[in-house]
Amino acid sequence: MSETWTPDFAKRGGLVPAVVQDARTRDVLMLGWVNQEAWNKTLATKKATFWSTSRNELWVKGATSGDELPVVEIRVDCDDDTVLYLVEPRGGTCHTKNAKGETRKSCFYRRIESDRTLTDLDP
Amino acid sequence: MSETWTPDFAKRGGLVPAVVQDARTRDVLMLGWVNQEAWNKTLATKKATFWSTSRNELWVKGATSGDELPVVEIRVDCDDDTVLYLVEPRGGTCHTKNAKGETRKSCFYRRIESDRTLTDLDP
Repeated sequence: MSETWTPDFAKRGGLVPAVVQDARTRDVLMLGWVNQEAWNKTLATKKATFWSTSRNELWVKGATSGDELPVVEIRVDCDDDTVLYLVEPRGGTCHTKNAKGETRKSCFYRRIESDRTLTDLDP
Repeated sequence: MSETWTPDFAKRGGLVPAVVQDARTRDVLMLGWVNQEAWNKTLATKKATFWSTSRNELWVKGATSGDELPVVEIRVDCDDDTVLYLVEPRGGTCHTKNAKGETRKSCFYRRIESDRTLTDLDP
C-alpha cells in the first residue's frame, strides 16, 4: 500500500503556500496559505480553503461572495512545502473590481515595468 | 509621475513568495522566496533570484546547474505580498530528475489522489 502524503507544515511554521491556477485558462489566479485544517477541508470538500492570515480563521474561498473555487486537481512540489490547486472558477477570484464593476479574474492583474511602476492589465 | 512599487516584505517577515510560471507552456514551475535583495537583483538582471531558506543565502536560480530562469514579465498581486515571475526556461527547473535522467521541467510533478497517495506525472 502506498503511503499517504501531507504537506510539511512544520517546515513553514504551520502554513504552506497554495498557488491557485485556472485549470482551463491556465492563469495563475491567487496565492493563499494552508494549514492542516484548511488542507483537510480542501481535500474533503473539493472547494479551495485557506487559512486567512489577516483574520486568523479558516477561509472557504467564496463562502460570502459566492465565488467559490472548485478544485479539480492538486499537485504538490518536490520539497513537500507548496501545493498547487487547479480550479474551475465560476466567477472572479480577486476581491478587487475593475472599472466596469467586474470582479477581477486574477489577483495578479498588475505588471511591474522596468522603472518599477505598475500597469493595470484589467483596468 | 507614478509611484514605484515594492513588495510588502514587512507583512511577511521579510520574505514574500514568488510563483514561477513558464511564459510559453503556462505550467507553474516552482515557488521560491524573495527578500529585498533578491527582488532588486531579479529586476536588475532579469534572472529569477531567490533567498534560499535552507541555505540562508541569495540564490540565483541555475547559477550552478546552468538552468537559469530568464524573467520576461513580472506580475504582482492585489495584496502586495506575492509576485509572479513569467519565465522562459532553457532547461528543467526542478532539482529532481526522472527515470530517463532528465531534470524535471516543473517541481509540481506529483498529483495527490483522493486516497492521499501521490502519482508521479513525470516518472
